Amino acid sequence: MPRIDAERLLSDLRQLRSIGAQGRGVVRPAFSAVDMEARRWLKRKYEDANLEATIDGVGNVLGRSRNSGKALLIGSHSDTQPTGGWLDGALGVIYALEVVRALAADDSTRALPVDAVSFQDEESRFVGCLGSRSLTGALTPEMESASVDSDGVTLAHALVDAGLTGVPRLHLSRERYAGFIEAHIEQGPHLEDAGLRIGVVTGIVGLRSIRFVFRGQQNHAGTTMMARRSDASTALYELAHRINFEFPKVAAERSVWTMGRARLEPNATSIVPGYAELDLQFRDPSEVPLDAFEATVARLVAEINSRGGVKIEAVPTRAPIAPTRMDSVLQAHIEAAAERHAPGNWQRMPSGAFHDAGIISACIPSAMLFIPSLGGISHDFAEDSREEDIVLGCQVLADSTASFLVAAK
Amino acid sequence: MPRIDAERLLSDLRQLRSIGAQGRGVVRPAFSAVDMEARRWLKRKYEDANLEATIDGVGNVLGRSRNSGKALLIGSHSDTQPTGGWLDGALGVIYALEVVRALAADDSTRALPVDAVSFQDEESRFVGCLGSRSLTGALTPEMESASVDSDGVTLAHALVDAGLTGVPRLHLSRERYAGFIEAHIEQGPHLEDAGLRIGVVTGIVGLRSIRFVFRGQQNHAGTTMMARRSDASTALYELAHRINFEFPKVAAERSVWTMGRARLEPNATSIVPGYAELDLQFRDPSEVPLDAFEATVARLVAEINSRGGVKIEAVPTRAPIAPTRMDSVLQAHIEAAAERHAPGNWQRMPSGAFHDAGIISACIPSAMLFIPSLGGISHDFAEDSREEDIVLGCQVLADSTASFLVAAK
Repeated sequence: MPRIDAERLLSDLRQLRSIGAQGRGVVRPAFSAVDMEARRWLKRKYEDANLEATIDGVGNVLGRSRNSGKALLIGSHSDTQPTGGWLDGALGVIYALEVVRALAADDSTRALPVDAVSFQDEESRFVGCLGSRSLTGALTPEMESASVDSDGVTLAHALVDAGLTGVPRLHLSRERYAGFIEAHIEQGPHLEDAGLRIGVVTGIVGLRSIRFVFRGQQNHAGTTMMARRSDASTALYELAHRINFEFPKVAAERSVWTMGRARLEPNATSIVPGYAELDLQFRDPSEVPLDAFEATVARLVAEINSRGGVKIEAVPTRAPIAPTRMDSVLQAHIEAAAERHAPGNWQRMPSGAFHDAGIISACIPSAMLFIPSLGGISHDFAEDSREEDIVLGCQVLADSTASFLVAAK
Repeated sequence: MPRIDAERLLSDLRQLRSIGAQGRGVVRPAFSAVDMEARRWLKRKYEDANLEATIDGVGNVLGRSRNSGKALLIGSHSDTQPTGGWLDGALGVIYALEVVRALAADDSTRALPVDAVSFQDEESRFVGCLGSRSLTGALTPEMESASVDSDGVTLAHALVDAGLTGVPRLHLSRERYAGFIEAHIEQGPHLEDAGLRIGVVTGIVGLRSIRFVFRGQQNHAGTTMMARRSDASTALYELAHRINFEFPKVAAERSVWTMGRARLEPNATSIVPGYAELDLQFRDPSEVPLDAFEATVARLVAEINSRGGVKIEAVPTRAPIAPTRMDSVLQAHIEAAAERHAPGNWQRMPSGAFHDAGIISACIPSAMLFIPSLGGISHDFAEDSREEDIVLGCQVLADSTASFLVAAK
């Protein structure tokens, strides 16, 4: 079995961290100058590892093995949140590089075909999982032309700035690949709470999101009597509170819902707001509670609208993401490797966060492995993991990659 | 009885409108270059009207009559909201100028002592009713040193920029004045709805305001299970909705309450917010419902806090304003004048908005008269009133001023 080089792994992780570092965190949003610098750095690293490396027309970096046979694709994404942590997608990207090198250094695994990838814009500057969507044909021209970041920059403009105009886009070949594995930090507290070191992901939760738009009438907060008001905030507070009251009645064990974004206009203490927005997002490993949540929302909105006054409109804010199951054969290889290197210290678990593996799994068998996040913290400068867990995760990925490809021969 | 000059009145109103005009509206916030220009223009107008005119150290413009006897002070404010209407305080300021001129032109009223005033910063760029507070000694050094506008400019800096450093501040002399009348647009729909042309203000509603601060724990919206969350938005939605549900049970006929400002941090769809703020403001002509609202709020906050999780802190955001009664003698003179010029077309009414008269009434007998606002709209570029109502209001003020001073002799 291949042995990864822990020092080389950690050194490359730190080098990638330095590109866009800010304090303990990293600011490397998709298509930014530092993001493109990191991608060119990664391409050189792939070439040094004897991969045939390409940056495609949306910024995906793909390193193709020169070995024959059906390949395993491994990797994640190197773009970050606007105030991101240093591990997030970077961990899985450098894992892939190290696994390729470790397998090439071992006589028993040298001939195995392993491709490495860093997807573009997993973090939704423009479109969540833009890179993996583009690779799998799930990025439509409509999504592309409608894409604007929070500063008003269009995707088209960002592509020009990144020097990607006219660069060909890659497409994932179902014939080339036997499967895909993405390693990632957990971004939640379950592994740490349970005192475990490896998570074998069984599936990725489904996600739906709705934006509620409330239209009332703006007025003076002193001179407009209550009976005359059409206060957008009143309807927002009612709907939000009743959602929080009704959802537990139909929720499943791992259901979560969040209303973390609200906007009142003009958002002034002394003005009755005439317009408001509220975002609702809900997730579950199964469609059943998601359908129940949607029905609850429709009932509450209809009830409030039937009273007249403020009018609520419910708009899906993005295409719903269906819950996905990870491939059981790939899972079995990850479980065996986890048990070998951390006996009794791993578990099967769903992923509450979405990942590129959720997109890729629509085309080829896919799986994920998690390492613990300290304090469950992610998408934050404070994001971190224990060094021994970082090293362990990479070794488990190397073993799984090798054993899967050997068995698939 | 004196006769006002309608053309001169409207012409001066339009001239003041032109200083800071933007489209149909006016942008003339306190201490801005255009605000100070308007104040210097007004000082010259006062001098032309034979008043002894001063701009004091906070920007109040006072025109003092050279006649003997206890004077009546009349006027309002010439500063505007950031996107203000053209009438708001400007109406009462130009009314005062015109009434002084009309009385001086009539043999029967020429000797009556009438002072005219334009207060500074009624609209709260720094401190609501800053000018009238300063005149009455209600502007404390603490309020002054803590004053910063929404762009981060300090009051001290604005005073320097406006050229007011070292300029003496005036103090309202209780000995000099028999009373104060402020004319204003209604800023609400009551007069228009009732088809009436003059409102005689019986009192100004009391106002209290509370800022709720919610402290929870920021988390990932996918990986943090509901039971582990300490979601600041959930507590905000609950408190706000329950306030809207409980307040009607203890409200009086003219009670109003508003929660027009809410802020979540980081206000992102996919992040459980760890911090939030909510502003609550409530008003009534009597203290009784205000006390009941405060007790209701305390009970709800204590109940939610007792559960653990998100901690709510309730902070009064400004000194409470007690309901004030307008002087009955002054009211009687305004009523008589209204009945003379618009028989049957006036009413007594409280003011739901706060005004400088609410500050001045703590020192000397005070009263207000309203003219209708088209559509009840105010603090907006669309603010307007019918020309015949503008003229009528000024004639009613001129009559009231004269009859009050004659009777007071």
